[in-house]
Amino acid sequence: MHVTKRVEFCAAHRYYHAEWTAEENRRRFGKAVGLHGHNYQLEVTVEGVPDPDTGMVMDLKALKDLITDAVLNDLDHRNLNEDVPDLNGQIPTPENLAVCIWERLTPRLVDCRLARVRLTEEAGYSVEFYGEYRP
Amino acid sequence: MHVTKRVEFCAAHRYYHAEWTAEENRRRFGKAVGLHGHNYQLEVTVEGVPDPDTGMVMDLKALKDLITDAVLNDLDHRNLNEDVPDLNGQIPTPENLAVCIWERLTPRLVDCRLARVRLTEEAGYSVEFYGEYRP
Amino acid sequence: MHVTKRVEFCAAHRYYHAEWTAEENRRRFGKAVGLHGHNYQLEVTVEGVPDPDTGMVMDLKALKDLITDAVLNDLDHRNLNEDVPDLNGQIPTPENLAVCIWERLTPRLVDCRLARVRLTEEAGYSVEFYGEYRP
Amino acid sequence: MHVTKRVEFCAAHRYYHAEWTAEENRRRFGKAVGLHGHNYQLEVTVEGVPDPDTGMVMDLKALKDLITDAVLNDLDHRNLNEDVPDLNGQIPTPENLAVCIWERLTPRLVDCRLARVRLTEEAGYSVEFYGEYRP
Amino acid sequence: MHVTKRVEFCAAHRYYHAEWTAEENRRRFGKAVGLHGHNYQLEVTVEGVPDPDTGMVMDLKALKDLITDAVLNDLDHRNLNEDVPDLNGQIPTPENLAVCIWERLTPRLVDCRLARVRLTEEAGYSVEFYGEYRP
Amino acid sequence: MHVTKRVEFCAAHRYYHAEWTAEENRRRFGKAVGLHGHNYQLEVTVEGVPDPDTGMVMDLKALKDLITDAVLNDLDHRNLNEDVPDLNGQIPTPENLAVCIWERLTPRLVDCRLARVRLTEEAGYSVEFYGEYRP
Repeated sequence: MHVTKRVEFCAAHRYYHAEWTAEENRRRFGKAVGLHGHNYQLEVTVEGVPDPDTGMVMDLKALKDLITDAVLNDLDHRNLNEDVPDLNGQIPTPENLAVCIWERLTPRLVDCRLARVRLTEEAGYSVEFYGEYRP
Repeated sequence: MHVTKRVEFCAAHRYYHAEWTAEENRRRFGKAVGLHGHNYQLEVTVEGVPDPDTGMVMDLKALKDLITDAVLNDLDHRNLNEDVPDLNGQIPTPENLAVCIWERLTPRLVDCRLARVRLTEEAGYSVEFYGEYRP
Repeated sequence: MHVTKRVEFCAAHRYYHAEWTAEENRRRFGKAVGLHGHNYQLEVTVEGVPDPDTGMVMDLKALKDLITDAVLNDLDHRNLNEDVPDLNGQIPTPENLAVCIWERLTPRLVDCRLARVRLTEEAGYSVEFYGEYRP
Repeated sequence: MHVTKRVEFCAAHRYYHAEWTAEENRRRFGKAVGLHGHNYQLEVTVEGVPDPDTGMVMDLKALKDLITDAVLNDLDHRNLNEDVPDLNGQIPTPENLAVCIWERLTPRLVDCRLARVRLTEEAGYSVEFYGEYRP
Repeated sequence: MHVTKRVEFCAAHRYYHAEWTAEENRRRFGKAVGLHGHNYQLEVTVEGVPDPDTGMVMDLKALKDLITDAVLNDLDHRNLNEDVPDLNGQIPTPENLAVCIWERLTPRLVDCRLARVRLTEEAGYSVEFYGEYRP
Repeated sequence: MHVTKRVEFCAAHRYYHAEWTAEENRRRFGKAVGLHGHNYQLEVTVEGVPDPDTGMVMDLKALKDLITDAVLNDLDHRNLNEDVPDLNGQIPTPENLAVCIWERLTPRLVDCRLARVRLTEEAGYSVEFYGEYRP
């Protein structure tokens, strides 16, 4: 049984590789080299078996509180290029963000396991990470 | 090949465990102990191979009629705590509802099999059941 | 300048006129005579001129707090037929709810005025009240 | 890691089997025997590992250009019964369209593989193809 | 008080002016000269005062039945260039469709008046007609 | 007759009043003092009468090109606090942005007039400007 909670956060970022020239960055990343931002939609899916008493895989409020504490408090209303230590040295693509979010959530789940992190950067563009490799 | 049909239904429910005190129920379930309701979104996914003549895994109208007959006629515009016998004795969580819906649909499919029941209780909160266990 | 904030709440209700027979209620209201519920989407629109310093018609957090205090605390996770005194004696249609919400919000706005209350009961069915009459 | 890009296209079609009588077509396909059309939503999912330099499984612009070139240029604003040679002789169901789109995309991907084609024909009705068989 | 009901219908159309050359049509209408189609979203808004007994401006089922009878039965699953007499000689733009739909609905409303017809042809492109002129 | 086209753009911003202390800014604007960003949804509505030949108030492609040229080229993938001269000295609230966009569009429309600019900053928070005052 999968249970999914979606939250949103707003952050700024730009795509810029420090070892490349400005021209190379522009050629590779286009207008994404300019500082801009997104309303990210984050869907966290946990997998488990419902508790026979409560009928819940995981209490919804507990799941929301975990996402807030482990992810939103550090990423919401931030500059992803500068304010998030575990993204240092990485281009803040949705792929890299999804792995970062996975690593923050997975050690803190008990009685169920993290099954999927889906991150939608803008309408019609999303990534899904299943923990299939470690950074 | 997966084919998914989404329908909506409106129902009332509350979370209340008969063997717990009112205080314990309040502590565990918060404001969900009060009678309230939802517009549920139900997505039913069947899996099969398209018929070579019609190009369809399952006729869409037949799928809608099945969902209406097996699920909506008993759950739509109902009180899930009292009006649905196969939920008796269970907290009407989306997890328990998804299993109940799976059990109602799966014996009635021919030429294709039920692959997933997804139930969205409110925007950004959903469960998915794949029949991986039986109640 | 209009500023709109949308919130959601979950409530139970049924349509039943106390002075009509059960048959008459069923004939008029169909399956809505059974207790059911909805995820209501409430959009509150205020009208004003942005403050020259802040560039805001009304601070977003203040607007959210007002909606929570004046509306959600009394309507969310409630039975609209029994738990809301100002709806007593009325069928809890979206029309009557919109007027009830208007009356709760309008006396508490300062520096801007309430322009519209839009209430969506289910996907594709909504009402809009502009305060054009008083109950 | 999965990366999904959604695009939309508008096309006309009808359901009609050339070897059946008009009555048989009407009986099987209902009002879909009349020429009509849809805004199709196409979601293309590729699977791969992010490039360590760019943090991307596949450049988003390259993915959009591929979908435009391989799919949209031939299907958008077309009559699917007459204008698409690889659909000749098939009922243009979403199932058959999904296979057609898979066959157009899969040979042109490098460094990642096609994982899923999801096609939504109208709100609440979609198919997913994973390349599990070949036409 | 405004009450709005949204429905959807699927239709085919093309843009082609019979008195212009093919080149002129192509220059003016671009790819819309090819036969294609849409999932139209139609929102019908009526204006009135709620009945004191029922709390309704207009019964929702009666509004749906009216839209089905006056509009959907003739436009859904049709070719708008050929199958709808009152569109004859007109380019089936959303503007012309909205006026056509207004004319079909407005004479059949009693106890409330038609306030707005909104037609969305594809995500992010819509028209609104308020009956401000007659065709 | 109203015609509405919706587009999206991504931009970074922060709320910070240069004449206030950091503490005052934090007290007034909360977490919005940190650099963050949004996927803005911009809906531009023009008002006019359809051309009798084309059935259009304004050609859709011409409307999209105007929005791109007058608005998106300067605001998309930008830092609204630094990169947009006509926002200099203003807090980049949606209210101020809507007026800025109105001023950029309105002088460039011919044969129809600008009726509304709606800007949605995040799901459930939007502003509407009707040109009712000039900056």
